[in-house]
Amino acid sequence: METNSNFEKYKKSLVDGREVYYRGRKVDDVTEHPIISLEVDTMSHFFEKKFLYDDPELGVETSKFYKVPHTSSDLLERSQLTYEITKDTGTLMPHIGSDALFAAMMVTNDLEEYKERMTSYKKDVVTNNLFLAGAQIDVKGHRQLRPLQQEDPDVHVHVVDEKPDGVTVRGAKMHTTYGLVSNEIFVLPGRGLRKGEEDYAISFAVPTNAKGLKLISRPAIGTEAALHDLEGARTKRVTHVESLTIFDNVFVPWERVFVYKDVERGTRLALLFALWHRLSAVSYRAGLAEYLVGLGKLVAEANGIDGVPHIQKDVVDLIAFAEIQKLCAKMAAYECTKDDGTGMAIPNATYTNIGKLYSNENYLNVMRSLIDIGGGLIVTAPSGDDYANEELRRDISKYLRGAIPGEERFKLFLLLREAISLLGGEESVIHIHAEGSIRASLIELYRTYNFDEPKRIIGKLLSQMK
Amino acid sequence: METNSNFEKYKKSLVDGREVYYRGRKVDDVTEHPIISLEVDTMSHFFEKKFLYDDPELGVETSKFYKVPHTSSDLLERSQLTYEITKDTGTLMPHIGSDALFAAMMVTNDLEEYKERMTSYKKDVVTNNLFLAGAQIDVKGHRQLRPLQQEDPDVHVHVVDEKPDGVTVRGAKMHTTYGLVSNEIFVLPGRGLRKGEEDYAISFAVPTNAKGLKLISRPAIGTEAALHDLEGARTKRVTHVESLTIFDNVFVPWERVFVYKDVERGTRLALLFALWHRLSAVSYRAGLAEYLVGLGKLVAEANGIDGVPHIQKDVVDLIAFAEIQKLCAKMAAYECTKDDGTGMAIPNATYTNIGKLYSNENYLNVMRSLIDIGGGLIVTAPSGDDYANEELRRDISKYLRGAIPGEERFKLFLLLREAISLLGGEESVIHIHAEGSIRASLIELYRTYNFDEPKRIIGKLLSQMK
Amino acid sequence: METNSNFEKYKKSLVDGREVYYRGRKVDDVTEHPIISLEVDTMSHFFEKKFLYDDPELGVETSKFYKVPHTSSDLLERSQLTYEITKDTGTLMPHIGSDALFAAMMVTNDLEEYKERMTSYKKDVVTNNLFLAGAQIDVKGHRQLRPLQQEDPDVHVHVVDEKPDGVTVRGAKMHTTYGLVSNEIFVLPGRGLRKGEEDYAISFAVPTNAKGLKLISRPAIGTEAALHDLEGARTKRVTHVESLTIFDNVFVPWERVFVYKDVERGTRLALLFALWHRLSAVSYRAGLAEYLVGLGKLVAEANGIDGVPHIQKDVVDLIAFAEIQKLCAKMAAYECTKDDGTGMAIPNATYTNIGKLYSNENYLNVMRSLIDIGGGLIVTAPSGDDYANEELRRDISKYLRGAIPGEERFKLFLLLREAISLLGGEESVIHIHAEGSIRASLIELYRTYNFDEPKRIIGKLLSQMK
Amino acid sequence: METNSNFEKYKKSLVDGREVYYRGRKVDDVTEHPIISLEVDTMSHFFEKKFLYDDPELGVETSKFYKVPHTSSDLLERSQLTYEITKDTGTLMPHIGSDALFAAMMVTNDLEEYKERMTSYKKDVVTNNLFLAGAQIDVKGHRQLRPLQQEDPDVHVHVVDEKPDGVTVRGAKMHTTYGLVSNEIFVLPGRGLRKGEEDYAISFAVPTNAKGLKLISRPAIGTEAALHDLEGARTKRVTHVESLTIFDNVFVPWERVFVYKDVERGTRLALLFALWHRLSAVSYRAGLAEYLVGLGKLVAEANGIDGVPHIQKDVVDLIAFAEIQKLCAKMAAYECTKDDGTGMAIPNATYTNIGKLYSNENYLNVMRSLIDIGGGLIVTAPSGDDYANEELRRDISKYLRGAIPGEERFKLFLLLREAISLLGGEESVIHIHAEGSIRASLIELYRTYNFDEPKRIIGKLLSQMK
Repeated sequence: METNSNFEKYKKSLVDGREVYYRGRKVDDVTEHPIISLEVDTMSHFFEKKFLYDDPELGVETSKFYKVPHTSSDLLERSQLTYEITKDTGTLMPHIGSDALFAAMMVTNDLEEYKERMTSYKKDVVTNNLFLAGAQIDVKGHRQLRPLQQEDPDVHVHVVDEKPDGVTVRGAKMHTTYGLVSNEIFVLPGRGLRKGEEDYAISFAVPTNAKGLKLISRPAIGTEAALHDLEGARTKRVTHVESLTIFDNVFVPWERVFVYKDVERGTRLALLFALWHRLSAVSYRAGLAEYLVGLGKLVAEANGIDGVPHIQKDVVDLIAFAEIQKLCAKMAAYECTKDDGTGMAIPNATYTNIGKLYSNENYLNVMRSLIDIGGGLIVTAPSGDDYANEELRRDISKYLRGAIPGEERFKLFLLLREAISLLGGEESVIHIHAEGSIRASLIELYRTYNFDEPKRIIGKLLSQMK
Repeated sequence: METNSNFEKYKKSLVDGREVYYRGRKVDDVTEHPIISLEVDTMSHFFEKKFLYDDPELGVETSKFYKVPHTSSDLLERSQLTYEITKDTGTLMPHIGSDALFAAMMVTNDLEEYKERMTSYKKDVVTNNLFLAGAQIDVKGHRQLRPLQQEDPDVHVHVVDEKPDGVTVRGAKMHTTYGLVSNEIFVLPGRGLRKGEEDYAISFAVPTNAKGLKLISRPAIGTEAALHDLEGARTKRVTHVESLTIFDNVFVPWERVFVYKDVERGTRLALLFALWHRLSAVSYRAGLAEYLVGLGKLVAEANGIDGVPHIQKDVVDLIAFAEIQKLCAKMAAYECTKDDGTGMAIPNATYTNIGKLYSNENYLNVMRSLIDIGGGLIVTAPSGDDYANEELRRDISKYLRGAIPGEERFKLFLLLREAISLLGGEESVIHIHAEGSIRASLIELYRTYNFDEPKRIIGKLLSQMK
Repeated sequence: METNSNFEKYKKSLVDGREVYYRGRKVDDVTEHPIISLEVDTMSHFFEKKFLYDDPELGVETSKFYKVPHTSSDLLERSQLTYEITKDTGTLMPHIGSDALFAAMMVTNDLEEYKERMTSYKKDVVTNNLFLAGAQIDVKGHRQLRPLQQEDPDVHVHVVDEKPDGVTVRGAKMHTTYGLVSNEIFVLPGRGLRKGEEDYAISFAVPTNAKGLKLISRPAIGTEAALHDLEGARTKRVTHVESLTIFDNVFVPWERVFVYKDVERGTRLALLFALWHRLSAVSYRAGLAEYLVGLGKLVAEANGIDGVPHIQKDVVDLIAFAEIQKLCAKMAAYECTKDDGTGMAIPNATYTNIGKLYSNENYLNVMRSLIDIGGGLIVTAPSGDDYANEELRRDISKYLRGAIPGEERFKLFLLLREAISLLGGEESVIHIHAEGSIRASLIELYRTYNFDEPKRIIGKLLSQMK
Repeated sequence: METNSNFEKYKKSLVDGREVYYRGRKVDDVTEHPIISLEVDTMSHFFEKKFLYDDPELGVETSKFYKVPHTSSDLLERSQLTYEITKDTGTLMPHIGSDALFAAMMVTNDLEEYKERMTSYKKDVVTNNLFLAGAQIDVKGHRQLRPLQQEDPDVHVHVVDEKPDGVTVRGAKMHTTYGLVSNEIFVLPGRGLRKGEEDYAISFAVPTNAKGLKLISRPAIGTEAALHDLEGARTKRVTHVESLTIFDNVFVPWERVFVYKDVERGTRLALLFALWHRLSAVSYRAGLAEYLVGLGKLVAEANGIDGVPHIQKDVVDLIAFAEIQKLCAKMAAYECTKDDGTGMAIPNATYTNIGKLYSNENYLNVMRSLIDIGGGLIVTAPSGDDYANEELRRDISKYLRGAIPGEERFKLFLLLREAISLLGGEESVIHIHAEGSIRASLIELYRTYNFDEPKRIIGKLLSQMK
């Protein structure tokens, strides 16, 4: 994929003194770091022509993800963008910044001052096509205690000081995806909040190089472990990492504070962002799932077991996994609701959460199906380095043949090994926890479901029982 | 663990000119190779005092695994040995060589000449406490075709020449566990065989440095990927790899040929070895499962969610996984059968295969439970290198605290990350495919199950229906 | 629900000498039989105003189900009709006759003579709003043998004689839903057929009172077992039974023979009917599922356990079961394909089969969830007769109170007992086998899935691995 | 089965004026009632020679179930008794009275007065081989409220008055199995109790005809619904029902009060009884499961699909379900613990609860497997009455043939229909809820599991991470 001037501009913007750590070392220039530069390159996909458009209002070329959806088809288009970019790259590429902006626009709409801040901030972001990371999940400390009950109040990001021109915040967020390569960190409350927890009911944005902001990258183990060029076909082209994002007395000017000590709006924002973000999740997961279907089918054919009943069952598991997520993503758009204030189209909560929950609960089932198709060779096949040794390559060619030639089959198994061994753990955790755990998806589905009609039909039967 | 002279002798014996490859390079001395030497060290556990005994017949100290079981309690003891050594080390340590020997002893018992060869070979092995790898699974080519239908006959190991003093064999076996660090490779047929397939119905042993024998190691990805000392707590202490084991016209003298062009005995040996080996499998899997129970419970406590209903369900999934395998291993010994010829105690096929099948089908469920307990931090936590940086360690200490201090919780998460990300893919494949696939376990359970009693009680009902 | 003249006309038409048996006795008038009359009454729903419309071409009032779908929204409307009528009644009400007609119209379209017969037959059916039962599944004999291999050729319906004016057929179909109360039996091939099996490759229609046609009803056990008025709230208002439908040398005039000794068209018809019928299935199953959601939620509330985590999980299982089927039904319409010949909209095969398979595989999971919510009282609660005894009613009122009064809760449990004990077995079998077994749904999904795109993205990765 | 004088004596003892209701009518003589007399006859199995023995201490012939277990093999024998009697009859036959007695003996052992009462009561029971029903589960009212929070205090059985010679109790228990045909009702606390709930912390026994005691039977729907002799092969020979058991100011003399206002002992008794009773449960469930294995295998053969892969998987599901329960029952005996006070052998809590939980969670999976094997004919096959009609029997014979003759296959399907349609709902609820719900089994397993060893091995790893 060719890069372009927009991407080059973005790339330069990342060399701004941000405080980033990877494996214990401070990274001076993320664009030059062996691992993080892969993530930077991954970002170039967002700057491809097909993901940009001319914003009619602002008269600038910017990301299509910033197009505010007002109809079913707008939402569908947005979901498809996420699906497409994920399929193009083979890694998860939700556009978290716009998920956050859209949620915040809805929440701030009826408070004049905040609405203005939001509008102005959004204009700036869109005009410059800035890339925002969303930072929602606090490190949380003891998971059964609320913020005020924690031994250290800083396990949730909170206001520690208020000044004429802004506020100072402290605490840490975890799981910040694409944070290292973002222009801005957009912070949202990590949970529903109650009266008394006002200090935690805040939302704001800061540039990624803000003073006091420190990002500790997780190690990209799968990428690091791909020791030969033939290994890591996906992860060495497209990589993402998350950071532990520490706010050590970071100052935020008022114009970038969007929710302030407002437990009702803070809670709404947490839930609304989760909803937007889960539609992005279901959309990218549908894209990732397609890789599994392709891999499963081709490996079944390569092994010569394409027609075996239990293998067909495995492949059908992969199909159902991909398609049910597609169904949910599409129907969440088709049957969207409407935000009264902004007129924005909101993803259907039932279908979004059903897709999310399905994905949470079934990813490891499809892993099992994929492993069942592949066989032990997923682990025991030789390495890319063996293939590079001419003599060993002949052995591979002779002895790893299946229903297709040995060299082709071997490469398929390297892809499968990448999916299972290099990235399997990481992607399993992502499918179970990213954008909310199984329990979180379940609670939200339960909370938002409309039980009226099912209750009505049972009520009708009851009324006939005299 | 202290080493001893037996182990030192064994270690020296490995430097014998064997033809081993790792990541494309020939390994001159396996005891010096950065990865394979870990496997060598792992082997030292087999030489610990508690796994040795004085063989009363031969008057030598040798492995307890070579004690031929004649009773339930012998079998139980053998199963417990595997369970214990696996628990001690945290990696799978079935004693494959004795599984193979015992099966072969039963199969050769009624053919005088072969019985003598077997007896003599076993005496040699036991006296010197040689470590044997079992090589059963052929590379197989097109999985739906039988040996004679394959384009290349060498995708199954077979006889290519017969001489006065022995035979020449060609082909390749895959998944040879501990092959690189074995003294001998014991070869068994990889499947049931039919009339006409006599050339494939062979069993024999060769020293690992036999001429024409080439072992290509799989890459130990999880071990390679553990980049800091704090990472890979299990895999950098105890490692095993499998090899692709190529027989390029290897000569085998008659005294080491145990089944020769005998489809009936070859088939029996394939099935009997699978049975012995599956009891070893259920036994080591019970040991590995205990790690998951411990991890799950401690992480739940560390997160402060020990009392949360869905987390209790997750922990109970881990418990049931461990205990059902224990139940099966113990009952396979308690309700063993007896081999008429040798008087050996044979593992109960029903309970062995139920344990094996349970393990195949449920490993990824317990992975899901473990991931559910842990949360996204399994992936997104900082690295061991970050912890080694004093400043970042303070951040870890402050921000990763849960219901226990941050540093302790962080280390738990490194263990969890090892289980999920470093080793998760590999161990998932092992649990699904090693010692036979899901389908193989299922077929064998079905084939060996005694339906008489269930049919009788239905027959009784039917007879009353007039 | 009020009846109307159309229904009265239909009802009279059933008293036509048809040969029907119920529990060993010949039924002279199905409209008077204690059980079958319930099925007749059930049929009245099809004659409700809202399910009728004025056919613009024929100028008659007829069933909306006979409206030929040409667009997505036509198909969606048709699916919604099935969903609605099922929700109204609480029993499965697919309009099988139109499923069969539509499939047959597509298959006969390019054979002038057969197309004319079809057109003329359809005109007759629609004009008179006749109710057709579809008879597809042969009794099949030994399930692993093909028709010509069976000991008795009559275990599949086949041609036994050909005359100038028509053909004679013999054999038996099973599972004929609503056959006893149909005007016509529309017969389709029960499976894909091969060269040589021409005698079995037939489709035709006969009036239900045709000479030689014999219908043996299955016992409506759930309905029979509802011994008190308060019990069987659904099944005593709306009942359906299936018949074993025997063709004992039944004569069929040529104008009612739609496929004749044509294995290619016979096979296509079998598959196409299955597709149409499965969309009906997914639609009615979504309707039935809504009852389970309502029941589950109300019982959880009645027991006071609405907020308990594992009960919420149970309710969410019910929701997901209902909604995924709805998603599939809707998307099968939204993303329909087009039949070239007739211009008819065809249900999307992937989404139809995913919905069907989901329903097959998960019904017993939701039964478990429902039972988990309800508790042992589902079985051990007193009977409707106890409630009718004033003294015992006081006991019920006092002792069966939960979070709602005892009498209300008791009635809810009678509904739950109907769902689990009276109808549970029957509905479980229906959800697993009706409109094709689990394996049939799976094979069809596999067969029709388009693997191009998943293969393309893996192919792209492979092409980059040099 | 021949009856004997012991049974005749027992039978007479039931005609004692007890207040029993069935379907709204008072039953004057339970031995004459069309349904309850079936339950009485079922009880005759307990009086078969093989289930009796001569008590060496008391010098009387009594039930083997009253033999107090002191060793593993005693416990194993007891478990096998339950397994055997269940297999003989095809219905669940736990000996609840001895489960209750044994638990109560252990709890009362260290309180002299209570121990004496217990000893004396047990002597009376054993000498006369009285049959005791256990009444544990209160009707409970609002399930989330504790006894004292309930609107009506009588939703849990409690003390309402204390007199010199005894106490008066009020309230109701549900799910009382074999209560209608018992000699005595043995009452145990239904849950763990806390300080303040002393009035509910009671255990006592009353004769079944005690004044104020009223038993309302559940309707035996499956039995009632078996309308022809050929139907209900199991349920019409062996039937059990449960009762709603109301204590309307029942007086209990002190000598029959075993726990009195003692929350600690009440709680222990509730848990210990549950443990004893769950071993009985796992034992009878293993017996019931054997019917499913037999049915599944024979139906697969009858349909000619015995060798089809997905059907083999179904049969293996049935096998695993039966065998894992057997494993648990046996190992709960093999690895029993010892009660310090009484020296009694106590079932291993881990294995008992694992077996119980496995059964809870998997019964509906095996129902699905069984239905998958059987096909739609389970529902749509003709009735026993049709078979009794000679002409229709010829049709059945001709058209229901599979791989076996039509008449034999038809009878198999009647058995299958009994398992799925007549008894399926009832047995599903029993498998999920009897002897404690899924959640109850899970909590108890979690509570009693020894985490020491799993924690130790992880602790060892942690200690090495410096």
